[in-house]
Amino acid sequence: MAQLLEAIYDEIRPLLGQGKVADYIPALASVSPHQFGLAICDVNGEVTSIGDASTPFSIQSISKVFNLVLAINHYGETMWERVGREPSGLPFNSLVQLEYENGIPRNPFINAGALVISDMNESRFASPHIGMRDFVRRLACNGEVVANKTVADSEFEHRARNAAMAYLMKAYGNFENDVDDVLHSYFHNCAIEMSCEDLARATNFLANKGYSVCADEQVLTADQNRQVNALLATSGMYDEAGSFAFEVGLPGKSGVGGGIIAVVPQQFSICVFSPALNKVGNSLLGVAALTSLSKRIGWSVY
Amino acid sequence: MAQLLEAIYDEIRPLLGQGKVADYIPALASVSPHQFGLAICDVNGEVTSIGDASTPFSIQSISKVFNLVLAINHYGETMWERVGREPSGLPFNSLVQLEYENGIPRNPFINAGALVISDMNESRFASPHIGMRDFVRRLACNGEVVANKTVADSEFEHRARNAAMAYLMKAYGNFENDVDDVLHSYFHNCAIEMSCEDLARATNFLANKGYSVCADEQVLTADQNRQVNALLATSGMYDEAGSFAFEVGLPGKSGVGGGIIAVVPQQFSICVFSPALNKVGNSLLGVAALTSLSKRIGWSVY
Amino acid sequence: MAQLLEAIYDEIRPLLGQGKVADYIPALASVSPHQFGLAICDVNGEVTSIGDASTPFSIQSISKVFNLVLAINHYGETMWERVGREPSGLPFNSLVQLEYENGIPRNPFINAGALVISDMNESRFASPHIGMRDFVRRLACNGEVVANKTVADSEFEHRARNAAMAYLMKAYGNFENDVDDVLHSYFHNCAIEMSCEDLARATNFLANKGYSVCADEQVLTADQNRQVNALLATSGMYDEAGSFAFEVGLPGKSGVGGGIIAVVPQQFSICVFSPALNKVGNSLLGVAALTSLSKRIGWSVY
Amino acid sequence: MAQLLEAIYDEIRPLLGQGKVADYIPALASVSPHQFGLAICDVNGEVTSIGDASTPFSIQSISKVFNLVLAINHYGETMWERVGREPSGLPFNSLVQLEYENGIPRNPFINAGALVISDMNESRFASPHIGMRDFVRRLACNGEVVANKTVADSEFEHRARNAAMAYLMKAYGNFENDVDDVLHSYFHNCAIEMSCEDLARATNFLANKGYSVCADEQVLTADQNRQVNALLATSGMYDEAGSFAFEVGLPGKSGVGGGIIAVVPQQFSICVFSPALNKVGNSLLGVAALTSLSKRIGWSVY
Repeated sequence: MAQLLEAIYDEIRPLLGQGKVADYIPALASVSPHQFGLAICDVNGEVTSIGDASTPFSIQSISKVFNLVLAINHYGETMWERVGREPSGLPFNSLVQLEYENGIPRNPFINAGALVISDMNESRFASPHIGMRDFVRRLACNGEVVANKTVADSEFEHRARNAAMAYLMKAYGNFENDVDDVLHSYFHNCAIEMSCEDLARATNFLANKGYSVCADEQVLTADQNRQVNALLATSGMYDEAGSFAFEVGLPGKSGVGGGIIAVVPQQFSICVFSPALNKVGNSLLGVAALTSLSKRIGWSVY
Repeated sequence: MAQLLEAIYDEIRPLLGQGKVADYIPALASVSPHQFGLAICDVNGEVTSIGDASTPFSIQSISKVFNLVLAINHYGETMWERVGREPSGLPFNSLVQLEYENGIPRNPFINAGALVISDMNESRFASPHIGMRDFVRRLACNGEVVANKTVADSEFEHRARNAAMAYLMKAYGNFENDVDDVLHSYFHNCAIEMSCEDLARATNFLANKGYSVCADEQVLTADQNRQVNALLATSGMYDEAGSFAFEVGLPGKSGVGGGIIAVVPQQFSICVFSPALNKVGNSLLGVAALTSLSKRIGWSVY
Repeated sequence: MAQLLEAIYDEIRPLLGQGKVADYIPALASVSPHQFGLAICDVNGEVTSIGDASTPFSIQSISKVFNLVLAINHYGETMWERVGREPSGLPFNSLVQLEYENGIPRNPFINAGALVISDMNESRFASPHIGMRDFVRRLACNGEVVANKTVADSEFEHRARNAAMAYLMKAYGNFENDVDDVLHSYFHNCAIEMSCEDLARATNFLANKGYSVCADEQVLTADQNRQVNALLATSGMYDEAGSFAFEVGLPGKSGVGGGIIAVVPQQFSICVFSPALNKVGNSLLGVAALTSLSKRIGWSVY
Repeated sequence: MAQLLEAIYDEIRPLLGQGKVADYIPALASVSPHQFGLAICDVNGEVTSIGDASTPFSIQSISKVFNLVLAINHYGETMWERVGREPSGLPFNSLVQLEYENGIPRNPFINAGALVISDMNESRFASPHIGMRDFVRRLACNGEVVANKTVADSEFEHRARNAAMAYLMKAYGNFENDVDDVLHSYFHNCAIEMSCEDLARATNFLANKGYSVCADEQVLTADQNRQVNALLATSGMYDEAGSFAFEVGLPGKSGVGGGIIAVVPQQFSICVFSPALNKVGNSLLGVAALTSLSKRIGWSVY
């Protein structure tokens, strides 16, 4: 495994310098693009890694996975009345489809979907971002995980488009709490910082029928776990979910901080990190590394 | 396996009578809704079946799979300049997205995508529907497979929406041949009649790394085969591709004739048939049978 | 003129009871639908009226006209960089077009357009709703005109969709002030209460080359006045601007409070009021009365 | 009047060379852009003109006006079940709105609307383009008016987008005749060649309460005439109907051949011609000339 990671590292390194770091908030724009880390965690919790795999980065939309799991735990099947399970076919932050479909977001991984799920968790938890933080710490075996307040505040300041989505859902009766309150929680979760090693551990339950070795906890039932992986496979990678399935063939979720997590069911959880993004907002080197990894070992689920 | 199929048959039978047979052309509207067949083919070509599994039916959009394979064989990677690989998020026969995306259909399984692929095959074959018929006969080990000319002619007569799509693509320079010629081939392929057993055999290569036992032929490379399965998983089931992944977790393709094929990679190809359709146009009992099958054996790829 | 109004009153009265009072906020829902008033003001400021023409009602979107005039006065041609002058072809509160056109609203009379203009006036006035109130009082020769605070507060509470629009424009850089501040001003202006007689006087400058007899003030230049009337003619009547031009042929603006103002250039300003609305949100009896009026005297500008 | 036209000619001439001749078919692309003609016809039929006002050009979409009048004559109010009367807010050849609104085009002047009207006239006339040609000859007092067959054939060859629209309407049950037959008639009408003087005469009834001096014929009732002018005012100028109302303030209709007709109700019909088009497809010098004309005399209807 260590050899495999080195081979991939050598193959991918020449791409450093391509792509563009997210720059819609200053705190993310200042991240050095010359970073690359990769960690793989097997179902016994054993982690192999290479490069900047222990460097914490902003997990951003990867937090949507944890957000979704918390909502499934609490609301079960009923939550699907408020959010769909279909790929969207439109950019992750579009309001067009949301209007045509009367305020029901297409799936939990476009922004509108994640916001409605944050709204559910806001209703559930006394202190939503403490609930999330503790959950993630348990899953990652790392009690030090924290959110970056500067990032969270800066995202809140630039909240206009997400606020527009939340208000539009409120207009359709699909948003319970105060919009600004939910946005605070949402951005706080996006601003959590974790390393590849943290995230490979924290998402390992997805490769392990819902059981987290770190937390020694059945996070999801085996059925629910398959369902979450199915959602990741059809909707986890923004506008390139289809290409990612085509080239990589694994359930995955990316964030604009440059991280991508991927799942080889019953075998491995993977996290790759490199901040420069491709045109649709996924880590350019991350996608390349996962493509190489999948091709080399035939890990595609299909 | 035979026992499993019987258990499913018993579970599903009470649903007979629900749903609605496709009625946009008389030839399909007259099919009896009280039919149900299921066939499973393992990678050695062994078929187990139950119910009306040897009754031929109109394969309709399932032909898009064979259509795509023929185009991949001939055009390889270059074909993806003319058709995308992303889920569509809009009904299978919508022109809206086609206009916004300048005549490049989202994927090979919405109608516009299948039409552009038919256009490719029209350019390639001297006699496109003979090319298709012979291909399908080889894959199914059945030299009797034919298209129903009445159905094909009736579809051509009601071609308006498909003609609109083809002309819109032509307006964007993404259609080479005469629209009516391609529509004739396209409808002819849709009107091919096969039974569940035929289709389970004919799609068995998808479960067998691209190798067809019947034809003794490597139909696709193992890589291409994974890619076709990935496309089926993200886009094969009309507007419920996401729900189907969530509930069933297998690459699949449905047709308005009431057939659905599904793939358990490296293990089985499955075909189920029942003509009454659910709201999005997939066989109601077919989806129910595959859901039950997947749940009972944990066949989800995720 | 008095005879004409009586004839119209007799013709229209049987329609009382048709249509539906706006009910998205309680304060409007409680208005009695059995009201009808009509006032006509000639260019000397002479008013003829009938029915409930001196009953104050919520002017709602008719305030967009005054809002626009204040912005033209202050910003002149430069304001058209932030809002268009084309009919929209979509419902007045749709976000779809706003997203496709990058946050530039189609015209000043759809909600998004009125909000961006409120944002302009928010930047200009120390106390925007006092600025508006005083302006309207002058134009109407009525120092008693006030806004209904209950209505304004209730609209603010139900602000979700308008807030969504404002935030979406902010996301595109087309909104300067705090969203809630502007919404407060906007709803305050909508909640102004005036009678048909007040409004016929207050909009008389539109029929008088921009000169207000009441205020003894050139409110707009003759050129600007023609332009405002042109905008009213192409975009003033929500989704039935075209039908209204076809049937009535006069520049006009309606509000969900049941008022409609219309302009016979160089001759008359008209205001009609009846709270029950037709399907697109215009006063049902109001449209009928103006149709009758226009047909009887051949007042269409076309 | 002659002096006025000279003043405008002098003002406009420096713009020659700006804009771009329509080039989607060779026959139009070869037209010299250095042409400008203007003709004004008063309600007695007296024509004043300047520049290339007697040069025939391809009337293109101006034919939609005659097409509409023929349909009104035959079908009266019932025709509005098949075509709307609202501005579209989308490009003249878009299929998006047509799909969202189930195959009912927004108005008679977008392409889809003109096609459905051509379909009506196809059902009515034994020989539709002879019917049109004779009608136009009568209105223009010019028995020599003919269509350019090369242009018509070339348009038919490039019919893809218009064919897509027609088939989409057929799919919604809003198209009776064979698509290619109607397209032949439609393009034939677009390919009619007339001069500014011809068109000023031929559209003079629009300025004359529906009465044509040339034909000595009440072409439309006074009411219908106002309605046609209203439609021209709200929808006649492609995507700049609103700006044209704002700047010029007259009912008008443009064609990609470079012609624009405009109406001063009860006073004049105007035709201007200059082949180079602005970004939305209206004659660049034509719009400039009409703006100048309207400003100089205060001819805006508003």
